[in-house]
Amino acid sequence: MAGFSAAVKPTPILKDELDIVIPTIRNLDFLEMWRPFFEGYHLIIVQDGDPSKTIKVPEGFDYELYNRNDINRILGPKASCISFKDSACRCFGFMVSKKKYIYTIDDDCFVAKDPTGAQINALEQHIKNLLSPSTPHFFNTLYDPYREGADFVRGYPFSLREGVATAVSHGLWMNIPDYDAPTQLVKPLERNTRYVDAVMTIPKGTLFPMCGMNLAFNRELVGPALYFGLMGDGQPIGRYDDMWAGWCVKVICDHMGWGIKTGLPYIWHSKASNPFVNLKKEYKGIFWQEEIIPFFQSVKISKDATSVQKCYIELSKEVKEKLGKVDPYFDKLADAMVTWIEAWDELNPSSAEKTAANGTAKAK
Amino acid sequence: MAGFSAAVKPTPILKDELDIVIPTIRNLDFLEMWRPFFEGYHLIIVQDGDPSKTIKVPEGFDYELYNRNDINRILGPKASCISFKDSACRCFGFMVSKKKYIYTIDDDCFVAKDPTGAQINALEQHIKNLLSPSTPHFFNTLYDPYREGADFVRGYPFSLREGVATAVSHGLWMNIPDYDAPTQLVKPLERNTRYVDAVMTIPKGTLFPMCGMNLAFNRELVGPALYFGLMGDGQPIGRYDDMWAGWCVKVICDHMGWGIKTGLPYIWHSKASNPFVNLKKEYKGIFWQEEIIPFFQSVKISKDATSVQKCYIELSKEVKEKLGKVDPYFDKLADAMVTWIEAWDELNPSSAEKTAANGTAKAK
Repeated sequence: MAGFSAAVKPTPILKDELDIVIPTIRNLDFLEMWRPFFEGYHLIIVQDGDPSKTIKVPEGFDYELYNRNDINRILGPKASCISFKDSACRCFGFMVSKKKYIYTIDDDCFVAKDPTGAQINALEQHIKNLLSPSTPHFFNTLYDPYREGADFVRGYPFSLREGVATAVSHGLWMNIPDYDAPTQLVKPLERNTRYVDAVMTIPKGTLFPMCGMNLAFNRELVGPALYFGLMGDGQPIGRYDDMWAGWCVKVICDHMGWGIKTGLPYIWHSKASNPFVNLKKEYKGIFWQEEIIPFFQSVKISKDATSVQKCYIELSKEVKEKLGKVDPYFDKLADAMVTWIEAWDELNPSSAEKTAANGTAKAK
Repeated sequence: MAGFSAAVKPTPILKDELDIVIPTIRNLDFLEMWRPFFEGYHLIIVQDGDPSKTIKVPEGFDYELYNRNDINRILGPKASCISFKDSACRCFGFMVSKKKYIYTIDDDCFVAKDPTGAQINALEQHIKNLLSPSTPHFFNTLYDPYREGADFVRGYPFSLREGVATAVSHGLWMNIPDYDAPTQLVKPLERNTRYVDAVMTIPKGTLFPMCGMNLAFNRELVGPALYFGLMGDGQPIGRYDDMWAGWCVKVICDHMGWGIKTGLPYIWHSKASNPFVNLKKEYKGIFWQEEIIPFFQSVKISKDATSVQKCYIELSKEVKEKLGKVDPYFDKLADAMVTWIEAWDELNPSSAEKTAANGTAKAK
């Protein structure tokens, strides 16, 4: 075997069960660096902005590419739920995928190195995270108990040690941290240099700021909850697409009894976006999140909501009722949430039943 | 300054505001290794077991030592709430201290090294943890936002960025992990070699297994909640002393609006305790914790409980009512909880009012 293995490339894990979704407005030269890790996988590229522009993809990658014309053609009037001129458009890629798992990454993210100097295979770590259980019901002080060399510590109830299905794996970023515009403005030179060698489950009942830069999830389990909202062109807000998806998916995972992990893997985030532009996109969000967070902290999903689609529709009604008062934008967003689910079910006809049957959902 | 500083030892931080509490049954040779870090501080040694035995303390340490005779003399009949032949006796040291902060450490814990090979000043890191705020209301994906080089990430509500007072700092262990007897039996050779460079707040509403090996807290804020229960001699259970204290203090901190941090610092835990002996001590706890955890997850403290003492007395009533059914032991424990508070207030007459006034308690 030893003489043999050097000549034959190992088959990438879950090669036929995972799509890599990349939203972009430019040539995908960044893929060169990812070649050793992504080459065996199928890519779904969602081209944002001017559809007449040609996006160059390096040789040797297996991909499909959708621009705005494709989105409009495929979804018809329902295309209104897919944002334009904002990376929120990535969720269109989630919808057209037919795979069980999704990894999504931004085109300004490169391969990071661990403290030994080795290149980090981010995708492999995400897959490990997704394939091992989560522990949202009790905190383990030695972090992910399923990692090699770790376990549940003394005092951890034995009845909870099986864990629950992991729905989302949220990876982090070396170099440019994911800061908001005010923090970017105040700390223009701050770089993340701390490599924290941990994966952990975000406890049930706790919200977190989900970043879409380096994110994987079980599409079969929670795909319909990963809607990135209405952002960018024609909308009063930007840069809250992933946050919105994160708050929704966390509340739904808590309801369905699934887990969300955060921590490893790191990618190298190369480019700080312009804080002045970001401030313009974010500033309404900075006010609104003060109302959105308490909303998601207290929102209740009924026992009848036994599928992600049902949870999401309930959530859209609550958004309309409770957040519609904050700004008319949320009325529009609530309608788009419904459109998203309709479009999802149209493109994924068996998904509604699948979701209900899958993952031994334990509704509260 | 450069030529000067080499000759003069720096004053240890909080030297006059912190006591180090050590429960022991043997000579404290382990302090030699801690000399550079502990020498300026006052030690409270709680001698467990045979009071006629002499415990040797290395030269140069400033300490007071209490054996069982001292405990009986000082507390009279209330001494019944202090465990014997179990490290739970350490909480007597918390009670007789007059300082604002406590650090407690086991005598089989040595100085650990960080990945660069440098000795870790565990106490200094605990003090950093206690003096910086906690963030129990929302999860920060880059861990403690108050650490150098870190901050709150995009999507973190600005209204929550002041944080809340930190009541407890829970440190971890390299080498021998804090496993229960079944895990020790199954994985006799497992050692913790993963240094996770993180400090984080345990979210509100989430319980955790608190280990007493390497623990610091703000005694002025939560001292009366750090009761280590009835364990060891004459009791049906052992090795749940710190767990009990951890569940109580977490529920009380959640109620009062204070935070608990876990992660750094690491100590080097040298000695695996005997798993067969441990199993004997633990086995009732292994059953009981399946009832205790749901109890603590659902217990409610009333708005009227505006001091830690009041919270603790309420909790003792709930323990009697709800856990008394599980085993008569919990009736006894509930009574001991009341005795503990009476003894605490006797030795700390101004503490009841202090606790109420302190730390801008925000009762739910």
